[in-house]
Amino acid sequence: MSLSDAYMELLGIKVEAVGAGRAHLSAVVGPQHLNLHGSCHGGFLYSLADAAFALASNSHGVAAVALSTHMEYFKPAKAGDRLEAHATEENLGRRTATYRIEVRRGAERVALFTGTVFRKEAAGS
Amino acid sequence: MSLSDAYMELLGIKVEAVGAGRAHLSAVVGPQHLNLHGSCHGGFLYSLADAAFALASNSHGVAAVALSTHMEYFKPAKAGDRLEAHATEENLGRRTATYRIEVRRGAERVALFTGTVFRKEAAGS
Amino acid sequence: MSLSDAYMELLGIKVEAVGAGRAHLSAVVGPQHLNLHGSCHGGFLYSLADAAFALASNSHGVAAVALSTHMEYFKPAKAGDRLEAHATEENLGRRTATYRIEVRRGAERVALFTGTVFRKEAAGS
Amino acid sequence: MSLSDAYMELLGIKVEAVGAGRAHLSAVVGPQHLNLHGSCHGGFLYSLADAAFALASNSHGVAAVALSTHMEYFKPAKAGDRLEAHATEENLGRRTATYRIEVRRGAERVALFTGTVFRKEAAGS
Repeated sequence: MSLSDAYMELLGIKVEAVGAGRAHLSAVVGPQHLNLHGSCHGGFLYSLADAAFALASNSHGVAAVALSTHMEYFKPAKAGDRLEAHATEENLGRRTATYRIEVRRGAERVALFTGTVFRKEAAGS
Repeated sequence: MSLSDAYMELLGIKVEAVGAGRAHLSAVVGPQHLNLHGSCHGGFLYSLADAAFALASNSHGVAAVALSTHMEYFKPAKAGDRLEAHATEENLGRRTATYRIEVRRGAERVALFTGTVFRKEAAGS
Repeated sequence: MSLSDAYMELLGIKVEAVGAGRAHLSAVVGPQHLNLHGSCHGGFLYSLADAAFALASNSHGVAAVALSTHMEYFKPAKAGDRLEAHATEENLGRRTATYRIEVRRGAERVALFTGTVFRKEAAGS
Repeated sequence: MSLSDAYMELLGIKVEAVGAGRAHLSAVVGPQHLNLHGSCHGGFLYSLADAAFALASNSHGVAAVALSTHMEYFKPAKAGDRLEAHATEENLGRRTATYRIEVRRGAERVALFTGTVFRKEAAGS
């Protein structure tokens, strides 16, 4: 099964690795990802994190849909920057689960995303 | 001055109206905006809201950068849906401001975004 | 059935009104609610909003537990201020629901809370 | 200087340790902290985390005020539980900073708080 989807392809987001409760994605900021100030658009940074969130939260074989997310922006990113999103599991419950996604440029943390999903088909439910 | 930017063009987001502390944008969900489940990607819904947030928060002539945002997802959207984002101001302080953006499909609320900016060049600061 | 609980009593929070998907609470900031700066503690403002969130989200006869909440702080409050929390329903789904709670001092908005619950005993589930 | 305040005393919150960008607090859930379901009130869990957030964010000698916070609830807590809040710094900028606070019961994570402050008196500002 492909792990990528049409939206990730539109944005140039690559899957580096996916495991149980984890995902690692990357993208290079291009001119098409910029806002009027010439910086990387916040929606692009979020989309990169959100794609990692989707892969990590759906990695257990139970369909998971996003309920609530938040994003803290630490540093601007610019054209040419190579960004990585690293998703890890904060909590895995029967019906809900929470993930942390760091958006990094090298060793530097550019943004922090936290997201909670509803798990639709938990075994025995 | 154009109100659109490269990222909005990549996603097909249109500016309907912008005023002081307000913005109204629209987009039609296309096949390139879908995730693996065939629904509109959460990152696209967020990007639509975030673009409205950027226009509303920069409407006062003071450069505003996103600090913290959150998104509540209520309903899935699908290819062909016409979505609108309506941004209004919750609070306008000297150095920070907060906005509410509703993402709607007709009269139905699809998602709710709340975002806080830091205002960089407040008069007299 | 009493609508108040031990924690609300400890903090001096009063129930003004509760309806389907709605709640209205009040409290007066006392010296026991202050932080080291002499302002009302952020945890007290949140607790007032959270109590309104709990009443509004449990008003439909389905047990609701908090999953994810956020709070935006707009203005400081001080000893002697009379605060009100007004909870309204943003979205009511079968398994989840989202509420908005404004914390006000007179006509002024002091803080904004948004919270999402998981509904434990939805009919027919 | 005392690190505790009136609100922490009202709630029985103890300071275990404070360092640069860090804080460790504890509290025991008592009958006065319960909600109508007999569980620890979400506002109490938040207040414990928020007190750690305040100490960690004010630890650098620059006054910091909360702008935006969020809380993810993972597990219920009950009377008699000893809870700890551990605050660490996610990002320290000149005018804003972000903290992560884990609320734990022994090795178990009960809740996760993320908060962003505005720093009022940054050197040279």
